Amino acid sequence: MYEIGIVHRNVERTEARVADALGAFGTATVHEAMGRVGLMQPYLRPIYAGTQVSGTALTVLLQPGDNWMLHVAAELIQPGDIVVAAVTSECTDGFLGDLLATSFKARGARGLVIDGGCRDVRALTELGFPVWSRAISAKGTVKASLGSVNIPVVCAGALVNPGDVIVADDDGVVCVPRARASATREAAEKREAGEREKRKKLAAGELGLDMYQMRAPLAAAGLRYVD
Amino acid sequence: MYEIGIVHRNVERTEARVADALGAFGTATVHEAMGRVGLMQPYLRPIYAGTQVSGTALTVLLQPGDNWMLHVAAELIQPGDIVVAAVTSECTDGFLGDLLATSFKARGARGLVIDGGCRDVRALTELGFPVWSRAISAKGTVKASLGSVNIPVVCAGALVNPGDVIVADDDGVVCVPRARASATREAAEKREAGEREKRKKLAAGELGLDMYQMRAPLAAAGLRYVD
Amino acid sequence: MYEIGIVHRNVERTEARVADALGAFGTATVHEAMGRVGLMQPYLRPIYAGTQVSGTALTVLLQPGDNWMLHVAAELIQPGDIVVAAVTSECTDGFLGDLLATSFKARGARGLVIDGGCRDVRALTELGFPVWSRAISAKGTVKASLGSVNIPVVCAGALVNPGDVIVADDDGVVCVPRARASATREAAEKREAGEREKRKKLAAGELGLDMYQMRAPLAAAGLRYVD
Amino acid sequence: MYEIGIVHRNVERTEARVADALGAFGTATVHEAMGRVGLMQPYLRPIYAGTQVSGTALTVLLQPGDNWMLHVAAELIQPGDIVVAAVTSECTDGFLGDLLATSFKARGARGLVIDGGCRDVRALTELGFPVWSRAISAKGTVKASLGSVNIPVVCAGALVNPGDVIVADDDGVVCVPRARASATREAAEKREAGEREKRKKLAAGELGLDMYQMRAPLAAAGLRYVD
Amino acid sequence: MYEIGIVHRNVERTEARVADALGAFGTATVHEAMGRVGLMQPYLRPIYAGTQVSGTALTVLLQPGDNWMLHVAAELIQPGDIVVAAVTSECTDGFLGDLLATSFKARGARGLVIDGGCRDVRALTELGFPVWSRAISAKGTVKASLGSVNIPVVCAGALVNPGDVIVADDDGVVCVPRARASATREAAEKREAGEREKRKKLAAGELGLDMYQMRAPLAAAGLRYVD
Amino acid sequence: MYEIGIVHRNVERTEARVADALGAFGTATVHEAMGRVGLMQPYLRPIYAGTQVSGTALTVLLQPGDNWMLHVAAELIQPGDIVVAAVTSECTDGFLGDLLATSFKARGARGLVIDGGCRDVRALTELGFPVWSRAISAKGTVKASLGSVNIPVVCAGALVNPGDVIVADDDGVVCVPRARASATREAAEKREAGEREKRKKLAAGELGLDMYQMRAPLAAAGLRYVD
Repeated sequence: MYEIGIVHRNVERTEARVADALGAFGTATVHEAMGRVGLMQPYLRPIYAGTQVSGTALTVLLQPGDNWMLHVAAELIQPGDIVVAAVTSECTDGFLGDLLATSFKARGARGLVIDGGCRDVRALTELGFPVWSRAISAKGTVKASLGSVNIPVVCAGALVNPGDVIVADDDGVVCVPRARASATREAAEKREAGEREKRKKLAAGELGLDMYQMRAPLAAAGLRYVD
Repeated sequence: MYEIGIVHRNVERTEARVADALGAFGTATVHEAMGRVGLMQPYLRPIYAGTQVSGTALTVLLQPGDNWMLHVAAELIQPGDIVVAAVTSECTDGFLGDLLATSFKARGARGLVIDGGCRDVRALTELGFPVWSRAISAKGTVKASLGSVNIPVVCAGALVNPGDVIVADDDGVVCVPRARASATREAAEKREAGEREKRKKLAAGELGLDMYQMRAPLAAAGLRYVD
Repeated sequence: MYEIGIVHRNVERTEARVADALGAFGTATVHEAMGRVGLMQPYLRPIYAGTQVSGTALTVLLQPGDNWMLHVAAELIQPGDIVVAAVTSECTDGFLGDLLATSFKARGARGLVIDGGCRDVRALTELGFPVWSRAISAKGTVKASLGSVNIPVVCAGALVNPGDVIVADDDGVVCVPRARASATREAAEKREAGEREKRKKLAAGELGLDMYQMRAPLAAAGLRYVD
Repeated sequence: MYEIGIVHRNVERTEARVADALGAFGTATVHEAMGRVGLMQPYLRPIYAGTQVSGTALTVLLQPGDNWMLHVAAELIQPGDIVVAAVTSECTDGFLGDLLATSFKARGARGLVIDGGCRDVRALTELGFPVWSRAISAKGTVKASLGSVNIPVVCAGALVNPGDVIVADDDGVVCVPRARASATREAAEKREAGEREKRKKLAAGELGLDMYQMRAPLAAAGLRYVD
Repeated sequence: MYEIGIVHRNVERTEARVADALGAFGTATVHEAMGRVGLMQPYLRPIYAGTQVSGTALTVLLQPGDNWMLHVAAELIQPGDIVVAAVTSECTDGFLGDLLATSFKARGARGLVIDGGCRDVRALTELGFPVWSRAISAKGTVKASLGSVNIPVVCAGALVNPGDVIVADDDGVVCVPRARASATREAAEKREAGEREKRKKLAAGELGLDMYQMRAPLAAAGLRYVD
Repeated sequence: MYEIGIVHRNVERTEARVADALGAFGTATVHEAMGRVGLMQPYLRPIYAGTQVSGTALTVLLQPGDNWMLHVAAELIQPGDIVVAAVTSECTDGFLGDLLATSFKARGARGLVIDGGCRDVRALTELGFPVWSRAISAKGTVKASLGSVNIPVVCAGALVNPGDVIVADDDGVVCVPRARASATREAAEKREAGEREKRKKLAAGELGLDMYQMRAPLAAAGLRYVD
C-alpha cells in the first residue's frame, strides 16, 4: 500500500482556523462529532498529562529501528503541524529524543504522534513538546533505510492523510480528514453546547434515564426490576 | 453464569462504618488481612495518582461497546457507593465520561472501578471523581443492549457481590465480601499496628532476616553463603 | 544457567566515582555510548517520574510469588547500591513494599529495579525510594523458596553482573558492565559535549539534514522529492 | 474472597446425564443458550485441536509457581470431572505435566482447565488428556503454599462453583451453573434444531438478511445503499 | 475517517486473472514485490494451517460485539471475494461462526480476514472456509448497531480498499491495491524466478555471504572477525 | 553489555555426545535437572508441533528489522549447531525464511531459536527445519546494520553462550551451559528413571499425596478438610 522512498513537498493542509478550532473540543467530542470514528488505538499515550492540542498532519513512514525519515520530515514542517509517524512493523525504539524535538519545535511543530517509542521524556516535558507514543524507550535508532514523508499512513489503526487535522489530549488522538474538518467543527460545537446544559442537570441530581428518556426503550428491551 | 436484563433495586450493603474504616488501610494491608485474596488484576490502574477510597459495591454488567446499564445504575447509587462495572468480553472503549461522572458524583458515588475504558480523564481529575480502569480511550459507546445491575460480577478477575466493600488506591483494587468486612477490619488493624513497630526498626537499620528470624529456615532450606 | 540457593557476600563493585558520574548522563546517552546496548526492555517503568539515579548492582534472583531473597539481599547492601531483581518466571506480584523499601534505604540502597511488581507506591514516593518495575500490584508474596543473591541475572532482557553500574531514569534502565564503566563514561562525556552544540543549532532552526550531512546519502539511497 | 487452606470433600455435582448431554452442543451453542454468558476469556486455548468435552467441575485454587493443591485435588476426582484451576495471580508456569495428567486420568478426570501453564504437551496429546491453558511452559513448580480445593473460583474471568458443568472445545471453555444445567440443555437443543434448518437454507444461498428479516430494521436504523 | 451506515453496492474489483495469480506467490513474496509494505500485523493468524488463498476484498466495518454488517455484506459477495472486516475498537468476540461461513461460502467467498474473533473453528475447518482472525472465541454478538460495507477500512494496521487483492497464507495477510496488482504480479514473478536459482545454490552449501556479495559491505561497515 | 560488530570464529562447543544425549530428555526434564533454571520465556513457540531437538548454540545478535548477521552466521555453522538469535529490541519481523533455512540446513544446523519472527512456515515445515520464534510474520528485513556472532546473548530471557547446549521441544526451549552439560545429563537420567516408576503407579490410581508423602506437610501447613 505504501510507496517507499518518496517525499511530497506540497501538502494541502486544512485551513489553520479550522484546525485550531477543533483542538478546543478534545478527542472525545471530536470523534463523536464524526460519528464515533477516526480514533487511534488507546495504546498511544501522552508522555505527560494535561496537554490538549490540534494541528495539521505531516505524515512520516518509518522503518523499524530507523528514524532517518524524521530528519527528512523536519525540513517540511510548517508552523501548526503535528508530525504523525507510522512504522512498517511494531517497534518500541526511541525514534525521537530531545534533539529532534528541539528541531521540530523550532520549525513550528506542535507535537508528535508516533506508533513507536520516544525518549528523553523529562527533557521533552521541560521543553513543552508533547508526544503521544506507544512506548517510552531510551533505545536509539539508525539512519539506514528509506521510508516516506507526506504519504497516507496508518498510525495506531487510523488512516491519516497529510494535511488532515490531528486532535490529541489525555484521552488519546483523533484524526479528522481535511474534507470533513469544517463540518466536524460545526457538529462538535453543537454537541458541546448540548452537553453544558446536560452537565448542569446531572450535577443537580437529574438522571440520564429521564433526561435521555431511556425508561421506555429499556422496558421494551425487557429490563426487569426486582425489589 | 450471569443473568442478563435484571436490576436488583435492594442491596444489603456493608455497614458504612465498616466500609469507611477499611479505606484507611489501603489495598495491600486489606488483602493481606483477608489471607492475600480478593485483589483485582493489576492491569486496573487509577486515572490519577494519590487517591485512596473505600465504599460499598454497586455492581454493573455491561456489554462490549455499550454503556446503557451505567445509566440504569445511576438511579440506584447511594452515598458511599463505588460503582463496579464488568464487561461480558474484553473492551477498552470509554464507557464513562465527564457527564456520567458528574451524575454519579451527584448521586453520591465515590468512584468507579471498570474492567473497560473511561474518557475525559482531565475533566474527571478536576471533578475529583476517581476511576480505576483497564484503559483510557475517547471511544464512545452505544445504548442498545441490556446487561444487569446489582448481580454478582467478575471484575478484573475478582468476584464482587453487590454491597461488598471496595478498597482502591494507587496499588490497585480489592474487594472485601460483606460477611468478612468486620473481621477483615480487625485483622487489618492488628497488621498495621505491627507494621508501625517494624518500620521503625527497619528504618534504624535492623534486618528483616533478624526481625523475622529467617536465618534458621534459610539455612534449613539449604542457602549457602560464599565469600 | 542460574545457580539456586547461593549468596555471594563479596562483590567487586565498580568504583563509586565512576558509577556516580554515569548517573548524570541518563540512560539514552549511556546506552548510546556503549554502542546502543545494555538497555532493559521498556516495560520496566518508574513508579514515579523525575528520578535519575545510578549505582552499583546488587543482584537478586527471586522465585515467582516469593520475596524471601530480598530479605537476604538487604544485609548485603552497601551505600550506593541499586538492587536488581530478576524472577525465574513472569510474575507481577508486589515483591517489595514500604517496609522492605525502608530497610533497603536504611542500608544505603538508592533504588530497586525489578522484573516483577511492587506495592505501596504512594508510601515509596513519599519515602523517595525509586523503583523501576513491570507492574504495580498490591499482591503479597511468600517466603518459601530459595533463589540467589549476587549471581549474574537477566533482568528485563539485560544481563546484569553484581557490581555493574545501573543507570535509571524516566526513559528506562541501562546496565554498564564494570569493565566498561570508565570507557563508557568517557564516551558519554564526548557525546554530551557534542549534543550541546547541536541542540543550540537545532533550536535556531538549522536542520539535521544539513548538520549531519544526510542529503547526499538520502539521494544515494534513492529518495525522491515530489512537488 | 477466597478462603485459603480448605478442601471441601463433598461436592454436589450436576447430574452426569445432564453434564454429558451439554458436551454435545459445544461452547458456542451452550453460552448462547444461557444468554451469552459463562464463557472464560479467549486466551485459554486447548493444547491440541479437535476435542470437545464436558464434565463436572472440581475446582482448585493455586498459588503462583506452586502446584501443591493439584495433588490434593487428585484424590477427590470422580469419573466425569473436569479439574478447573485458578491461580491467585497471573502465572504461566507449567503446573501440570504428564505425571499429574496420568494420575488425573487414572482417577477419572476428563481434562483440565487452568488459568496458568501446562507442560509435556506432546505426552499429554498422546495420553489423550485435553488441557485448556493460558500458556505452554516447561517451567516446573514448587509444593510449598496452600491454596484450596472445591471452593468457588474465578478462572479466566468466569466464576466456577464446584459441581458446575464445564464444556470445552476448540472455541474455548464455558461454565454452566448446576442450577441452570437442565434449562440450558433444553435451550441448547432448541437452538441447535433451529440451526440445522438455517444452515441448509444458507448453504443453498439464501441470505441471513431475508431469513432473519433484517432489511426493515436496517433501513429503520438508517442504513443507506449506494450504487 | 469512516462513514458509518453506508453500503456501496458496486465495487471495482481487481481483474480475477490477476487476483488469482497473486495467490500463487504467498504473502512473503507479494509484500516484497511491493517494496515490503501492505502486510497486516502478525497477530492475525489462520484458524487452521496449510491454506494459501487470494481474492478481491469485500470490506466491512463492524462495531464491537456486533456482527450485523456481516449479514449485509453476504448479499454483496461475488465469487472470488475475500471478506475483510475491521472493527471500530479492539474486540475478540466471535463475529462469525459456521452459519455465516456457510452463507459466505455459498455466495462464493474464499475466506474471511477479520480484526476480531471467530468461532466454530472445527466446523469451519471441516467446511474448508479459511479465516484469519485475531482471536478464537465462542462469544456471540448482537445485531444492533450500523457499520458500513465496501468503504476503505484499516484492518490489522493495513488500509484495504474494496476491490483490492488480498493474499493470505500461514505467514499472514497482505493487501495489494488494485492499481498496483498487475505490476506486483510481475515483480513477484521475477522475484520467485530468482529465488529458485538461489535456493538450489544454498541447498548445495553456497553461502549468502558470497551469493549476495556481502563480504565487502560488511567489512566496510566495520565487522571484525576474531579467531 | 553486548559488543557490536564482532564475529567469533572459534567456539568451544559442548561435546556432541553430551549435547545429543540431552535432547532425548526434553525441556521439562532438563530444566528440572538444572534446578528449574535456564528456560526461555514461553512466548517462544515452535512453528510446527512434534519436534524435539538438541544442539550446540551458535549465537547471533540482530538489530530490529535487519537479518544481516544471520548470513554472517551461516558460514560458521557446524553440523549439530542450533542457531540462537537475539534482537536488540522487540521485533516480530520475519528474519528467516525458506532461503536462509535451506542454507542453514545445508550447513548442518538443526534448527533456529529466535527472539523475533520467521516466515515461510509452510516451506520450513516441509523442509523439516524447526524454528522456535516469538511470531510468524511475512515482513521482510534489511541488511544494513551490524550485530555480532558468537557473543553471549540474552534470548527470550535466558543467557546463552556460544557452545552451550540448546534443547527445544513443544514445551519450549532450555539452555544448558557447557560447563554443566555433563552433570545435567546425569541428573536428567536419574530424574527420568524415577519418573518411569512413578508414572506406572499413578496410572494404576496411586495418589501423589501418598507417593510423595505430602499428607503430613499439608496438615502441618494447616490444610483443613471439610465434609
